[in-house]
Amino acid sequence: MIRLGLFGCGRIGRVHADSIDVHPQAELAWVYDPIESAAQDVAKQYGATAAPTVEVALDDPNVDAVVIASATPTHVDLLRRAACAGKAVLCEKPIDLDLARVDRCWTEIAALNPTVMIGFNRRFDPSFREVHERIAGGDIGRLEQLIIVSRDPAPAPREYLAASGGLFRDMTIHDFDLARFFLGEVVEVYATGANLVADYIAELGDIDSAIVVLRGADGALCHITNSRRSVFGYDQRLEAFGSAGMLSVGNQHRSSVRLSTATQTEAAPEYLNFFLDRYTPAYRAELDHLITAMEQGGQPSPGFSDGREALALADAAYESLQTGRTVRLGRRVSEV
Amino acid sequence: MIRLGLFGCGRIGRVHADSIDVHPQAELAWVYDPIESAAQDVAKQYGATAAPTVEVALDDPNVDAVVIASATPTHVDLLRRAACAGKAVLCEKPIDLDLARVDRCWTEIAALNPTVMIGFNRRFDPSFREVHERIAGGDIGRLEQLIIVSRDPAPAPREYLAASGGLFRDMTIHDFDLARFFLGEVVEVYATGANLVADYIAELGDIDSAIVVLRGADGALCHITNSRRSVFGYDQRLEAFGSAGMLSVGNQHRSSVRLSTATQTEAAPEYLNFFLDRYTPAYRAELDHLITAMEQGGQPSPGFSDGREALALADAAYESLQTGRTVRLGRRVSEV
Amino acid sequence: MIRLGLFGCGRIGRVHADSIDVHPQAELAWVYDPIESAAQDVAKQYGATAAPTVEVALDDPNVDAVVIASATPTHVDLLRRAACAGKAVLCEKPIDLDLARVDRCWTEIAALNPTVMIGFNRRFDPSFREVHERIAGGDIGRLEQLIIVSRDPAPAPREYLAASGGLFRDMTIHDFDLARFFLGEVVEVYATGANLVADYIAELGDIDSAIVVLRGADGALCHITNSRRSVFGYDQRLEAFGSAGMLSVGNQHRSSVRLSTATQTEAAPEYLNFFLDRYTPAYRAELDHLITAMEQGGQPSPGFSDGREALALADAAYESLQTGRTVRLGRRVSEV
Amino acid sequence: MIRLGLFGCGRIGRVHADSIDVHPQAELAWVYDPIESAAQDVAKQYGATAAPTVEVALDDPNVDAVVIASATPTHVDLLRRAACAGKAVLCEKPIDLDLARVDRCWTEIAALNPTVMIGFNRRFDPSFREVHERIAGGDIGRLEQLIIVSRDPAPAPREYLAASGGLFRDMTIHDFDLARFFLGEVVEVYATGANLVADYIAELGDIDSAIVVLRGADGALCHITNSRRSVFGYDQRLEAFGSAGMLSVGNQHRSSVRLSTATQTEAAPEYLNFFLDRYTPAYRAELDHLITAMEQGGQPSPGFSDGREALALADAAYESLQTGRTVRLGRRVSEV
Repeated sequence: MIRLGLFGCGRIGRVHADSIDVHPQAELAWVYDPIESAAQDVAKQYGATAAPTVEVALDDPNVDAVVIASATPTHVDLLRRAACAGKAVLCEKPIDLDLARVDRCWTEIAALNPTVMIGFNRRFDPSFREVHERIAGGDIGRLEQLIIVSRDPAPAPREYLAASGGLFRDMTIHDFDLARFFLGEVVEVYATGANLVADYIAELGDIDSAIVVLRGADGALCHITNSRRSVFGYDQRLEAFGSAGMLSVGNQHRSSVRLSTATQTEAAPEYLNFFLDRYTPAYRAELDHLITAMEQGGQPSPGFSDGREALALADAAYESLQTGRTVRLGRRVSEV
Repeated sequence: MIRLGLFGCGRIGRVHADSIDVHPQAELAWVYDPIESAAQDVAKQYGATAAPTVEVALDDPNVDAVVIASATPTHVDLLRRAACAGKAVLCEKPIDLDLARVDRCWTEIAALNPTVMIGFNRRFDPSFREVHERIAGGDIGRLEQLIIVSRDPAPAPREYLAASGGLFRDMTIHDFDLARFFLGEVVEVYATGANLVADYIAELGDIDSAIVVLRGADGALCHITNSRRSVFGYDQRLEAFGSAGMLSVGNQHRSSVRLSTATQTEAAPEYLNFFLDRYTPAYRAELDHLITAMEQGGQPSPGFSDGREALALADAAYESLQTGRTVRLGRRVSEV
Repeated sequence: MIRLGLFGCGRIGRVHADSIDVHPQAELAWVYDPIESAAQDVAKQYGATAAPTVEVALDDPNVDAVVIASATPTHVDLLRRAACAGKAVLCEKPIDLDLARVDRCWTEIAALNPTVMIGFNRRFDPSFREVHERIAGGDIGRLEQLIIVSRDPAPAPREYLAASGGLFRDMTIHDFDLARFFLGEVVEVYATGANLVADYIAELGDIDSAIVVLRGADGALCHITNSRRSVFGYDQRLEAFGSAGMLSVGNQHRSSVRLSTATQTEAAPEYLNFFLDRYTPAYRAELDHLITAMEQGGQPSPGFSDGREALALADAAYESLQTGRTVRLGRRVSEV
Repeated sequence: MIRLGLFGCGRIGRVHADSIDVHPQAELAWVYDPIESAAQDVAKQYGATAAPTVEVALDDPNVDAVVIASATPTHVDLLRRAACAGKAVLCEKPIDLDLARVDRCWTEIAALNPTVMIGFNRRFDPSFREVHERIAGGDIGRLEQLIIVSRDPAPAPREYLAASGGLFRDMTIHDFDLARFFLGEVVEVYATGANLVADYIAELGDIDSAIVVLRGADGALCHITNSRRSVFGYDQRLEAFGSAGMLSVGNQHRSSVRLSTATQTEAAPEYLNFFLDRYTPAYRAELDHLITAMEQGGQPSPGFSDGREALALADAAYESLQTGRTVRLGRRVSEV
């Protein structure tokens, strides 16, 4: 049995509490949130104890791992402290909005050889994962082109977006990681964007629609399409085109029902609404991966360097957006 | 080049005129219709000549074949006369509404060994035909269950239906033939029906909705679902279920466009509207089959006996509808 | 919190244990199975206690309800005893293979006004349920034709089938109930079948393939297609055709991945394998329905009379199979 | 009746001959090809006359229009001569590989106010056209993102590609025009590519895989994905994403048949193979558009300037490919 502490009891924190709850080898011991009532709510719902401070959880020798689902600016500090306390860590994305802070964090904890997993849940979506496995199994030959479409149902509120680090660090970062999952290292980034959805996003100096083009080290091309608003629901699709075929993943509907009437045929119902529905199995598989790694003594993946690289791609995307140029990536995490 | 005469210049007659027009080895020589203006219209449109009488066409030694697309009661007479004149015949379904008349007709012409094809166009639909070929090729092993759905967009007017011979002889007859195409001989028929669509059909003493169950000589089961009204358009589907898999044919849309909005996803446009659209390729392939048979000296299929057997199944279906019993079929056309 | 006892710890018993385990208002108190080790396994896995006898659970005043998932011949006895002990009951289908025993059981317990629910899980499948709600909401006008396809992946072993009561009582009974869910009372049954799948089924005197035709009291027609073997997986589909449109439910795939290669396009992976996968959400919703009914003081549905009527339809189907005739149903459970 | 001359009797010339043949208001009078036997073959098949020289057709006062389907280097000369002879022109893409030659051609003929249509057939594909009309009708609100996938089944031979002007001028040019059809004017181009398919393409100094990103004057973003090889067939898809929904066009299959077996489900057959099959209706609608414009006295669209602009986008794409930078487009054809 793996005993866990959870830092952060907001929307995403509750997702993790739920995953821990249904996992047969996991037990939620402590929950912490600066808003005490939030911590108590989650503690009550899942049979855990609300910790008055983070230390209480980190000092508990019976805690094996912590999930960091708090506000982004707190991630690196919590991650460092958890690593120093010898706990395994599942940290939500992004590690931080500042690559330099991320690198400093790693410098401080690398010697501890910590068990760190970054919460890029898409790698654990059963359909995306199946595509990854079938490519490895040779179903489409060599991967040549990867198309990722990722659109949110509706933009987050102004306050959230103001602190989000911008589209590429907040939203596209999932797609950067997904691209790396399929392409391996990325050597070129081009990004362009537009303000089409909401005026307040432009006022924040950010874009709300984007197209990003990547080139992998092995020559495969990838493009990512993002929007902060999709009226027909969470739009999460992927196509992997190869020398011998194509594997694609479409959106998932609320049910299998189709309606034909005098004006249209075979209309499907809404897509699964946002990440809480769409990626429930992914969040659970993500936790399971960490627990399996802990029990078998290996390093979970995606790890710290994957979190670092996805952020580096986001930075490169902003550089490309500003310069209109392809940005070539040279540094590797191993050189940090 | 095959020169043809066309008897009947109504809606279905024009379909055949069109097929002849686009066929590179066919030429429409004569057209006849009791309504002279109808004949002249078709003659003008397709570069043929309106014949004052049927004899003019049948006496023309340069005419190789005739298409009988006139009113059903005229079929057997025209078929007999055409056969006696040594013309090949493509006769629309049904041969007649009265099985005894059909059998007399055959008795009169059998010795001539005439080239007769019955217009069961569904056998020539590219998708249905592909299923037939792939079953023969072993794609699904042994055929065990066949599901046919056949629904018209809207009921024909009262006058048409009053002379139609009823649902089973007018509409289901296509499905009976399609079932025979897949099952071979049918040994049992059960039929039930209902009046759900239009009062005037009940007033005519006919049903407008039906379910028919068939058993083939080799043991396969089949059911047919009919309705005189489908608000979402012409509903023409088939599933062939076998010991090693299933081949299915869905409906065909007007275009490949799909629409997703805030209330539904991936809605397709209307289906191809009724037989003029849905079965255009089938009508053309049907004519081509006749012409190929004529040029190569073989008998086209479906032939006279197929027309006879489909009508016998319609009769059996009415008997079952009235008695509530399974009707077992013993006679074969070869015994007639 | 509802405390439950579970009678029967085989495959279906474990499904119910799992549903109880994940339900926030349910707690599994006792489990019983004549094979003691089976009971102990389930007890251990779900934190319950293995009861040495059924009485121990029935005598426990803290037990609110029991789930009867034992062998069919034990159902009526357990159901009667549970009702007499004042427990609510969720009884797996069929209540019994003998309609007379079913009716006697009801005679014995009717005065107790027991809370009895029969485990016709398909009514709780989210997609089937959505179709039911949307018909009620007017999406397709009046229901005219219902098409149910229900095929198992592979036939059960000889020993299971020998005691199963035959295809109609064991497998089609789900479809009979589903038909009643949509049609209301059924007034006519026709059934035909064949032996196409496995010799040992014929040796048992049963069929392995069937087509059943039903007529509802309001005039709608329905047909059911069954097979004991579907090589492409559990085939569970439904089409509801109405005066203003059609609602359909297709099969559910293991994932959303599609593959296109040089020989085919858009091939989907396997369907969800058998009822444990396909109907997991249905089993959970079924239990939730019972618990909600208990908490709110109402009667759950489907109830005892629904279990009785589905069995009566199975009996009628066998009568039709033997006589080749439509069987008209007159008796109603209220007349028993 | 419109009488036409056809210059070029290769593969694409035959497509146009076929469109003319089936058009009720069109008649193919002359055909010319430098390979005399090719001209005679087409002349014979379609009942036209092989012209010994281009002049014979251009001098024929009964010729109303010419179709230029000859080798690209001959286009501008033929186009100029046809315009000077007062003939309407349907010219295959590209007008020329050299933008300066294209502009000189227009300078020479502009004063004649010629009727010139460029053969961008995709605008006339029924599904793409329907999307265009439904966007105009408000189905998806404001267009924000356009995704075009265009992949050929297999690369053309070395000799063809050597003279093709490269991927962007030969193949992507169709997508550039399609993008302009939806976006209006394009103000930014970014392009990247790779050599993944065939060594001989790299040896020719060209790419075989590409991603192109465009920005329209109204702010919409577009990306185009190209490959010279798609083993699963001609891959021609489009998604138009807007503020109120999405319209998409998938690939078109050879038939409606789907196969389910023990290893996969609902596998569709091959896609329509290459442009001769996929775009047959588009070629016919394209010709019909020209004929309708001629009969009604208007200018057909896409016109000369559309051909010019698509080529300008191809040039800009090559500039971007070489520099790694976004290319901003300032000039408009009206300024030429």
